Amino acid sequence: MARFPTSIENLIQEFKKLPGIGEKTAERFVFHLLGRGHQAPIQLADALYALDRSIRACSECRSVSESDPCRICRDPSRRSDEVCVVADQQGLSAIERTGAYRGKYFVLGGLLSPIEGVTPETLGIEALDARLRGGSVRELLLAVNPTIEGEATMNYLSRRYGASVPRLTRLARGLPRGADLEYADEVTLSDALTGRREMKTP
Amino acid sequence: MARFPTSIENLIQEFKKLPGIGEKTAERFVFHLLGRGHQAPIQLADALYALDRSIRACSECRSVSESDPCRICRDPSRRSDEVCVVADQQGLSAIERTGAYRGKYFVLGGLLSPIEGVTPETLGIEALDARLRGGSVRELLLAVNPTIEGEATMNYLSRRYGASVPRLTRLARGLPRGADLEYADEVTLSDALTGRREMKTP
Repeated sequence: MARFPTSIENLIQEFKKLPGIGEKTAERFVFHLLGRGHQAPIQLADALYALDRSIRACSECRSVSESDPCRICRDPSRRSDEVCVVADQQGLSAIERTGAYRGKYFVLGGLLSPIEGVTPETLGIEALDARLRGGSVRELLLAVNPTIEGEATMNYLSRRYGASVPRLTRLARGLPRGADLEYADEVTLSDALTGRREMKTP
Repeated sequence: MARFPTSIENLIQEFKKLPGIGEKTAERFVFHLLGRGHQAPIQLADALYALDRSIRACSECRSVSESDPCRICRDPSRRSDEVCVVADQQGLSAIERTGAYRGKYFVLGGLLSPIEGVTPETLGIEALDARLRGGSVRELLLAVNPTIEGEATMNYLSRRYGASVPRLTRLARGLPRGADLEYADEVTLSDALTGRREMKTP
């Protein structure tokens, strides 16, 4: 015998598919929606349908977009000779939020991970080959998280494109703003030392 | 300028209305759904619509149900002379899961809280008056969480119905299974002492 009516059980199962959501939280979502009245589940459902209808992948950079090419790829004020490689849409958005990058993007859709079966082929890296083939790209900025998978991916990309792209760069590593030397890990502190910069004297 | 396409922003806003969900988690939900392909957002949307179409409140016990009266109120094997008062559907489900209760229910839909403006009137307590009016109910079991609001609610209900219902009961308080005396709080331990029970000698 089900603990709840079928439609509630089904919705709990659907919510449980979301990352980090277990049985109890999924239940709380459902009863929260029921408690907020008739419009609440409909509004969420409509937003989901709208997402499915309107979102496609940009055929140039593979970011999610409501148009193809996407807003950034269409923008004539963005430099076409700089391509920033990000792991996913969240990475792209984080860089866009800074306002400090004026080139274009390429979304990998993941990071290399032999254990999880993620290879250059499953990532569809040939799309990046095609993008770089013309020789008009002068800088390839590898902007993925400096994790084990991220480092492996950047390592692979630098070997693949090192010879064909004039400038291959990665994000600077060092102390984050507000960091405390005493609590910085050794790798971060080594990076900060290695990458130390000349100060301008006033 | 929006950080994401409109349909993504809208869905993030909808997810943020769920309890305990902030910006980052809502974002992660959306990109998780996008990453799982076309069926994922549709399945969740369909489950939400199904919920809205099929769920109503039982007119007798006010639990959420796909039929009216609900499965429990219709069940002739459940005792009609015992009514268990719960705060919400989750409380009802928790008691049902034990299989130890064979009476019927009344769902308050909240707990008294003058600070948050929850009064007997906003809870619609008259529906419980009506339920008890015939005199056929012999026991009213007050099964709400033993929190401040829960205690206030049980206190109120016992004053309201103490004279008209033959047996007014509440869930036992004491040590939970597996508890450690050393770490039990004083109130729980006092409850366990006050409520101590005679042991059957073999």
